Amino acid sequence: MSNDYLFLRACRGEEVERTPIWIMRQAGRYMQEYRDMRAKHTFLELCKTPEAAVEVTLQPIDFLGVDAAILFSDILIVLEPMGAKLAFHEGRGPVIDPPFRTLADIEKLRVIEPEEDVPFVMDTLRLLRKELEGRVPVIGFSGAPFTLASYMIEGGTSKAFIQLKSLMYKERAAFDSLMTKLAKTVIKYMNAQIAAGAEAVQLFDTWAGILSPHDYIEFVAPFNKMVLDGLNRTVPVIMYANGSATLLKHLKAAGPDVMGIDWRINLDDAIDLLGGDIPVQGNLDPTALFLSREEIPKRAKEILDMGKKAPGHIFNLGHGVLPPTDPDNVKALVDAVHELSQK
Amino acid sequence: MSNDYLFLRACRGEEVERTPIWIMRQAGRYMQEYRDMRAKHTFLELCKTPEAAVEVTLQPIDFLGVDAAILFSDILIVLEPMGAKLAFHEGRGPVIDPPFRTLADIEKLRVIEPEEDVPFVMDTLRLLRKELEGRVPVIGFSGAPFTLASYMIEGGTSKAFIQLKSLMYKERAAFDSLMTKLAKTVIKYMNAQIAAGAEAVQLFDTWAGILSPHDYIEFVAPFNKMVLDGLNRTVPVIMYANGSATLLKHLKAAGPDVMGIDWRINLDDAIDLLGGDIPVQGNLDPTALFLSREEIPKRAKEILDMGKKAPGHIFNLGHGVLPPTDPDNVKALVDAVHELSQK
Repeated sequence: MSNDYLFLRACRGEEVERTPIWIMRQAGRYMQEYRDMRAKHTFLELCKTPEAAVEVTLQPIDFLGVDAAILFSDILIVLEPMGAKLAFHEGRGPVIDPPFRTLADIEKLRVIEPEEDVPFVMDTLRLLRKELEGRVPVIGFSGAPFTLASYMIEGGTSKAFIQLKSLMYKERAAFDSLMTKLAKTVIKYMNAQIAAGAEAVQLFDTWAGILSPHDYIEFVAPFNKMVLDGLNRTVPVIMYANGSATLLKHLKAAGPDVMGIDWRINLDDAIDLLGGDIPVQGNLDPTALFLSREEIPKRAKEILDMGKKAPGHIFNLGHGVLPPTDPDNVKALVDAVHELSQK
Repeated sequence: MSNDYLFLRACRGEEVERTPIWIMRQAGRYMQEYRDMRAKHTFLELCKTPEAAVEVTLQPIDFLGVDAAILFSDILIVLEPMGAKLAFHEGRGPVIDPPFRTLADIEKLRVIEPEEDVPFVMDTLRLLRKELEGRVPVIGFSGAPFTLASYMIEGGTSKAFIQLKSLMYKERAAFDSLMTKLAKTVIKYMNAQIAAGAEAVQLFDTWAGILSPHDYIEFVAPFNKMVLDGLNRTVPVIMYANGSATLLKHLKAAGPDVMGIDWRINLDDAIDLLGGDIPVQGNLDPTALFLSREEIPKRAKEILDMGKKAPGHIFNLGHGVLPPTDPDNVKALVDAVHELSQK
C-alpha cells in the first residue's frame, strides 16, 4: 500500500527511507483548481460540504505528491456552535461580531458535541479515508484554546492583541472560563476527528508567539496541557505555533509527539532547544518558494541536513503556503525533498 | 546637572545608582497633549517643524520623568529626499506610492545630504539640546536599511513581505543597490544627528525579525555592518529589531554598543544568547501596561532582576507604547523602575 507509513513513522521517530513532506495550507488559493471551487462556493460552504471539502483536500495530493493529506477546514469552525457569529469577508479575514469581552458573554458559550454540531468535519474525514484508500494518511487539526480565544476576544485578527491581553490580565476569571470551554471543545473535537479516522492531528496555537514566555507559562500552558492530556493518544499529535522560538520548550512541555517549527529559527537550533529527543516538522520560509526553481532544492537540502539531528523529521514550510505562490515551485520543493532525502 | 550620565553610563556598561528608563514612542498618541498637537498639525508637519517636534519630544519628559528624550521623527523621513513619494494616512500607516520594485526604479534614488535635505531633523536636535539644558540626554535614530527597504519595496506595511523577499531573492543586484543607497543614507543621516547633538543613536531594524537567520546573514547583515562601521562612534549606538530572538547574536555582530531586546524572549535568556558582555535595553511587553497599577511594578521587578546579568541595563518596553495605553500606567512603570532599582 501507500506511503502513509513514511509520515506516521517519522512522527513516531522511526526509521524512514526518505523524509516525508506535506505543506501547511497545501489545499488553498495558490492552486487554480481551488480558486475554481471557490468561484462556485463560499469558504464556509466548502468547509461544511463534505464532498466539496474532500475534493479540495485531494487537489494537492496528486499534483504535489505530498506524503499526507490534511482535512480542509478552518480552525474557527467550532466557534459557531459554541455561540459565536462567524463570517469570512474576502480580503479581510475572519470576523466574530460581537466579540466576547465579558464574563457574561463568555458564560453563554457552550462546549460543542462534534458529531452533532460539526458533523460535516467528521463526515469529511470518513469520506477522505475512503477516497484515499490508504494512499496517504489524513491529518486532522484544531486551533488551540489561546488562538481561538484571540479571535473571540479581538473579534478577528489583530496587530497588538490589546483586547485579548487586557482581558487575560484584568479579567482572569473570564479569560480562564473562556479557555476552559475552548479546551473542552478542542478535546472533544480532536477526539471526534480521531474517531472518524484522522491518522494524526495538529494543534495550531498560531498566535502563541505574541506572548512573552512569562505570559505563555502563566496564562496558556495549563490549557494546552489540558488539551494534550485529554486527547485519545492513539495517533501522533503535532504542536505548532508561529514565531515561537522562545516558547518551544514550553510548548513541548504539554507533551506532543512532534513539534512544528516556524521559519524564524534554524531547524538545528530548534532541535537543540527541544533537547534533541522529539521529532520535528518544518521549517522552510514560505517566501522561499519565490526563489528561482534552481535555488529551492538548495534551501530544501539545508533544512534536510539540519533535520537529521532530530529523531524524526517531517518536511514542511514554517507557516502556510502563500496565495501568490507558483504551484510549480511548491511541486519543485516536494520533488526536491523526495529526491534529496532518499536513502 | 542632570541625570544624563545614568542613561549614557548604562549604555557604556558603567556603574549606575539606579536603572535608567525611557520608552519607545514615549512622545505619541497615548498622551492627550500629543493628540492636541496632532489636531493642529499633520504627522509630517510635526516631524518637519522643529519647534513643534521639540514640544512633542518634551511632553513626556516632565510627565514621565524618563531618563532620556528621543527625537520626535519617523524612520521614513529620509525616503522623501531619496526620491520616494511618502504619505501617512490615518489608521492605515505609511504609504509609498509608487513602490520601488525594479533596478530602474532604484537607480533613480539618491543618497541624501542630511543638512540640506532634512535640515529640520538636525534643527530639532539642536533646539532640543538647548531646551533640555542637560536635564536628560537626547537620543537620535534611524531606520536600518532593510526596514527602510521593506517600506520602499512593499509600498507600506505588509503581512508576508512577498514583494520584498521576491526582489531580495530574484533581483539581487537591484536589492543590493537599494540596500547600499539606504546604508549610505543612514550613515550620513545618523552622523549628521550626532554632529547636531544626539548623545546616543538607535538603529531600528524593526522588520528584521521576519527573516530566517539564513536570510538575515546572507542579505542584511553586511549592510548593518556597513552602517555601524560608517558611524562616528563618539556616542553609544543601540541596535533594535522586533521579534529578533533568533537573530540577536547576528545583530550583535554588526558591533553596536547596546542591544535592544523585544518582549518575546526572557531578558536573561537574551543576555545569555548575547554572551553576557553587552549592555541591553528592554524588554517589557507593551501590553503589560494594560495590567492593573499593582501588577506593573511586579513585572518591572522581574525584568530588573533579569537585567542584572548584563554589564548594563536600560529599561524600556520591548516595542513602542501602544496608543490606547493609560499614561498614568506608563508613569507608574517609570516610577516603579526608579524606585525598585535604587541602590
